[in-house]
Amino acid sequence: MFDGLKIYGSGDFLHEVYDRETLFLCTIATTETSRIEGITGAGASPDLTEYTPAADVELIVHDAPRCLPEIPQTIVEGESAPTPAVITKASLELAEIPFIVADAGASVKPDLPYITINSVHGRDIRTGRAVDDPQGIYERALILGKTLSEMTEHLVIGESTPAGTTTALGVLTALGYDADFRVSASMPVNPHNLKRDVVMEGFKKAGIGPGDCRDDPFMAVGAVGDPMIPAAAGICMGSSVPVTLAGGTQMTAVCALIKALDPEFDFSGTAIATTIFVAEDETSDINRIAEQIDEIDIYAVDPSFERASHKGLHEYLNGSVKEGVGAGGAMLAAMLHGVSVDAIRGRVEELCSRIFP
Amino acid sequence: MFDGLKIYGSGDFLHEVYDRETLFLCTIATTETSRIEGITGAGASPDLTEYTPAADVELIVHDAPRCLPEIPQTIVEGESAPTPAVITKASLELAEIPFIVADAGASVKPDLPYITINSVHGRDIRTGRAVDDPQGIYERALILGKTLSEMTEHLVIGESTPAGTTTALGVLTALGYDADFRVSASMPVNPHNLKRDVVMEGFKKAGIGPGDCRDDPFMAVGAVGDPMIPAAAGICMGSSVPVTLAGGTQMTAVCALIKALDPEFDFSGTAIATTIFVAEDETSDINRIAEQIDEIDIYAVDPSFERASHKGLHEYLNGSVKEGVGAGGAMLAAMLHGVSVDAIRGRVEELCSRIFP
Repeated sequence: MFDGLKIYGSGDFLHEVYDRETLFLCTIATTETSRIEGITGAGASPDLTEYTPAADVELIVHDAPRCLPEIPQTIVEGESAPTPAVITKASLELAEIPFIVADAGASVKPDLPYITINSVHGRDIRTGRAVDDPQGIYERALILGKTLSEMTEHLVIGESTPAGTTTALGVLTALGYDADFRVSASMPVNPHNLKRDVVMEGFKKAGIGPGDCRDDPFMAVGAVGDPMIPAAAGICMGSSVPVTLAGGTQMTAVCALIKALDPEFDFSGTAIATTIFVAEDETSDINRIAEQIDEIDIYAVDPSFERASHKGLHEYLNGSVKEGVGAGGAMLAAMLHGVSVDAIRGRVEELCSRIFP
Repeated sequence: MFDGLKIYGSGDFLHEVYDRETLFLCTIATTETSRIEGITGAGASPDLTEYTPAADVELIVHDAPRCLPEIPQTIVEGESAPTPAVITKASLELAEIPFIVADAGASVKPDLPYITINSVHGRDIRTGRAVDDPQGIYERALILGKTLSEMTEHLVIGESTPAGTTTALGVLTALGYDADFRVSASMPVNPHNLKRDVVMEGFKKAGIGPGDCRDDPFMAVGAVGDPMIPAAAGICMGSSVPVTLAGGTQMTAVCALIKALDPEFDFSGTAIATTIFVAEDETSDINRIAEQIDEIDIYAVDPSFERASHKGLHEYLNGSVKEGVGAGGAMLAAMLHGVSVDAIRGRVEELCSRIFP
């Protein structure tokens, strides 16, 4: 029934959300951390990474980005892989799942209606003061989670946050988790040393060390995090319906924040859904991070891009992109509505040949 | 069954929305027009009118306004009437209807998550260039209407726009309707001459006359309108489920814009819901405006405030406030979910004694 789905954990969560009315929310955010050369592949150049979240959601709603002339692609050694937004778009359209956008703090705003949780983007985490008022972001997100859960039976929260694995590493480390060399990357070669150095520089500026923020988790986000993390945590904690956190290792930082804010939080109503490219990545380890936090189901979808004829999609098999814009969770949500991975891949190919001819 | 409800029109719309899953969206906007002395009662002083929309929606979500220390009240001759937001809050809470906010262009932003359609507030319409890019607002609102209608079976659109009857008069007149001396007011004495003079000054500056914008309705909004009008029109036209426009004569301007943009628009899926204070107002005439546009059902709810013990509510009987924040539509939506007007009035009194002791 769920061909192409790999389950890490009990799998009980699937029964709770099977064939339920679903809403997909994409949280977008940026930090100036993404301008650091070599830290992310989410954009054709470091300067353009801050356009990526807005361009991604515009692509989903308008079929083309409006905030910049180019379509977001991850370019490594001259080969370009299409943005994971096409996977999200294909999945949601096939399953007729509504798509809404929440601004958690993106420097470039998309040309479409979006929910404002916070409008100020994050700083370079090397400053040690990455995010202003993370608690305010969290508190507004709590309200949003409560409201949205009155309107659906299953909430899927995706994200588009360039350099988000670095800020996730920062938050995880500040909260006492061992995430070094375990966060994912949008490039085949994972710049772990660069990420660690960037995080450590932020720690130094903030005057904190690993594990120092266990009792003040907002300090972790404020120092070395990004605005997406408290936003997604708040929406999840405010929700009264099951929540799928649609993303890779960044979503473990969201879970870590939730756990720090509420050690009794029941994760049976919350799962992480990602792609097989993250789950089977040899340069990172989402399971080893998650198991330190709590018993959290992780679902990984394999779209079998080796069977795709569009060349750019083969770059995913080489370790480019891997995940983003909630691609894994969007595929899972579509599968829960009876859509096969083959149908998703077919639609992704159609979109690619139309959008990236 | 619908004690306290007065129907103008066929009433067929009621059957379409009876006991349906409902979502209440409050669009907020301001124009500097509201600073004109004597034009609106929506605020303790002209300077404070721009805080009213944010304060109103904060009151609904947080039980108290956050953007200013005072609670919005309409003060006439020393008597203060509570904001209609308490009626909306009481109704939605009793019927468990989700409440969301959309910013169509409010100068003060509320401290809660809200959907951004447009973030720039309107100018004083005496400038003749009241709203920037009304078509862009409309187009983003169309997308929002489509998305929201995927998440509910009945959409109720309220508004909080100080001096909104003046901007409504401007748009109606520019589109060729005879609305002079027919728009409503938040004070017992309706300053019709002031409103007309303000509109005429805007017309002069914009180089247009009554009826001149029939073929270019966005020009009407751009010259003498407010940002709520194209936002509400777009949401309504984008929706695939029935829409209740919750407001007084301002909502006729929304209908007029819809009609101008699409002369074939089918109004059987769209109704106006307001309070009896607007519908039976002797200083205005919502029916005479609406019937010029199309066959539009109008529903008016009477909360029987003469039976209320809270003194401020009696001011509504004297012509203060009348409507706002979608109060009439919120009451109708609650009634469609089996809540009686007596229950609504009871909850309004409870809220008033807690909030305005």
